[in-house]
Amino acid sequence: MAGMIDFFFEFASTYSYPAAMRISDVAREAGVAVRWRPFLLGPIFKTQGLETSPFNIYTTKGRYMWRDLERTCGELGLAFRRPEPFPQNGLLAARVAHVGFEQDWGETFCRALYAAEFADGQQIGEEGVIRELLTKLSLATDPILARARSPDIKDRLRATTEEAERLGIFGAPNFVVSGELFWGNDRLEQALRYAQRVRPTT
Amino acid sequence: MAGMIDFFFEFASTYSYPAAMRISDVAREAGVAVRWRPFLLGPIFKTQGLETSPFNIYTTKGRYMWRDLERTCGELGLAFRRPEPFPQNGLLAARVAHVGFEQDWGETFCRALYAAEFADGQQIGEEGVIRELLTKLSLATDPILARARSPDIKDRLRATTEEAERLGIFGAPNFVVSGELFWGNDRLEQALRYAQRVRPTT
Repeated sequence: MAGMIDFFFEFASTYSYPAAMRISDVAREAGVAVRWRPFLLGPIFKTQGLETSPFNIYTTKGRYMWRDLERTCGELGLAFRRPEPFPQNGLLAARVAHVGFEQDWGETFCRALYAAEFADGQQIGEEGVIRELLTKLSLATDPILARARSPDIKDRLRATTEEAERLGIFGAPNFVVSGELFWGNDRLEQALRYAQRVRPTT
Repeated sequence: MAGMIDFFFEFASTYSYPAAMRISDVAREAGVAVRWRPFLLGPIFKTQGLETSPFNIYTTKGRYMWRDLERTCGELGLAFRRPEPFPQNGLLAARVAHVGFEQDWGETFCRALYAAEFADGQQIGEEGVIRELLTKLSLATDPILARARSPDIKDRLRATTEEAERLGIFGAPNFVVSGELFWGNDRLEQALRYAQRVRPTT
């Protein structure tokens, strides 16, 4: 591999959807390895004095974002439906994803989760929705949910969020290459070019 | 021409710099005409309850923006120096630009102004700096500055800003194609593809 990207994403984040759906393919083509790092934006927004998504606070910008996201998904051939309410609660999904990445179904789960949220309009904060997704992936729901709620996994998600904050992350998705931060689905290609030029630090 | 783009930009805006420096070349290659529309972001920020640039209010995002802008300029081969203070006052420059676009030196002036601000670190709010730029372009400064301060030109800048607000603009730069808004230097190519597909409305 030419390099390595840390992909920091949040399940409630709109532009994380197209990023998650395409990163594996474009990174493989670029010969760059990807480490998926689910984190939570809520605690980071709170430290900036934001009680909800900036897209809900700045409504003109929010309106633009929905239209832009629709266009972006259109160009990528991705189905799109606006989640209601927005933002969805991504806490349980993020914990389950961390379980998936200590096993071997993390990426598959993340893509299925994003499709459920942004293509099918499902309520991803509900345990029933997560259970259904896991069942469709032929995974054993009870032990996974128990592990997702273990102190280990809770700590891991908290640590990832704290690492994101230390890296200067303030939104999602993000691509981090040797400490260099690239923010936004539209920065993925630039991050890949950067990763091809630098040696991974890990 | 395959289509037409309205390019709404603001002289204080950081990402308007790379957009202004490259739009003429890439639009020409795409066969798309560009109408340059200098406007002011300040009044629009005020209606959103923002008293300065969001990059100054959200400092983590601001830090990222400067690094990202540096990288963007680097990839484009554009010199870059962070303006101090930020944002600069772009009022007089915007009025002078409107004079330039009713004559034939608008684009040249805009590029020279952006280079003075973001490559040379000049204070673009100062009349002396504007005079110097006009002189370098072999233009007669006194009549241009008198015209820039005429009710006609003041009204034109105000009307452009009001039009920007009606279009749902909340930042800069913007590319507007038949009422469809594309925001950000990184959306220029998408706007050009869109302009190639639709007929101009004017």
